[in-house]
Amino acid sequence: MTPIKTHPLTAAAFAPFGDVLDATGEFRLINEGMCQRHHDRAALDFGPAGRAGISIFNAEARALPYEFSLVERHPEGSQAFVPMSEHPFLVIVAPDEGGTPGTPRAFVTNGAQGINFHRGTWHGVLTPLHAPGLFAVIDRIGTTANLEEYRYAQAWRVIGA
Amino acid sequence: MTPIKTHPLTAAAFAPFGDVLDATGEFRLINEGMCQRHHDRAALDFGPAGRAGISIFNAEARALPYEFSLVERHPEGSQAFVPMSEHPFLVIVAPDEGGTPGTPRAFVTNGAQGINFHRGTWHGVLTPLHAPGLFAVIDRIGTTANLEEYRYAQAWRVIGA
Repeated sequence: MTPIKTHPLTAAAFAPFGDVLDATGEFRLINEGMCQRHHDRAALDFGPAGRAGISIFNAEARALPYEFSLVERHPEGSQAFVPMSEHPFLVIVAPDEGGTPGTPRAFVTNGAQGINFHRGTWHGVLTPLHAPGLFAVIDRIGTTANLEEYRYAQAWRVIGA
Repeated sequence: MTPIKTHPLTAAAFAPFGDVLDATGEFRLINEGMCQRHHDRAALDFGPAGRAGISIFNAEARALPYEFSLVERHPEGSQAFVPMSEHPFLVIVAPDEGGTPGTPRAFVTNGAQGINFHRGTWHGVLTPLHAPGLFAVIDRIGTTANLEEYRYAQAWRVIGA
């Protein structure tokens, strides 16, 4: 079982896979100065036949070390995960190498970050590290399956930092 | 100053104004049984010329009693607020009465709820009751102002339950 270390989630490291949704960087002051708006942070893409939707996911918490062999991607749409808690969660992604995923990478959020997977990005399933594993998910609503799964020949073991 | 009591946020009471985004009711089991998907919970509407976007709001926490005289609405789009914490927040809405807002109503969330204001719904500004006042906001991205404000002739005072 091949070990994978985790890395802190940063916008730069995550850029090939998607967007980090957090309250850093530029903002507009709104509501008479009482609120910072960090504007339009995600590259949303729901394809020609899809539309945006908000679903609520309630996932069981996992712990490190975490073993997996399955990843998935959504060929027809981006998928954003917004944690409804201040707990860090585990984010697993993999680069595409000619139609199949390469070596996975693992990130851990800082407790104040959401993410948006760009359309077609290979990723692991939702893996909160603390209960409740409650997330708002902004993804494509449509009539097609919009799901590709890939099982690696061997399992990976996310061991932490 | 006219007092307003708060009520627990429920889908039934909030229905004239928008959607409650939470992990109640029907779901699909996904990710090999490890995750409940409460599917497509918000009536999103970004008008003919808008598109969906995700912005991050960082608002100052307020406390009860809370006084206000200003409400607003977005004529061209719905607006969803997903708390990135488990803290309750205050939701102020008002029915439309011929183009101006009527008597406001105040709700307090249970710490595991987001909301989606339907297009054109009068509402107060974002009012977290605890720091950090961090929210993901799914609303209309477009080139028009998409904002109407209304200041009541007298202030209202939200006093709690």
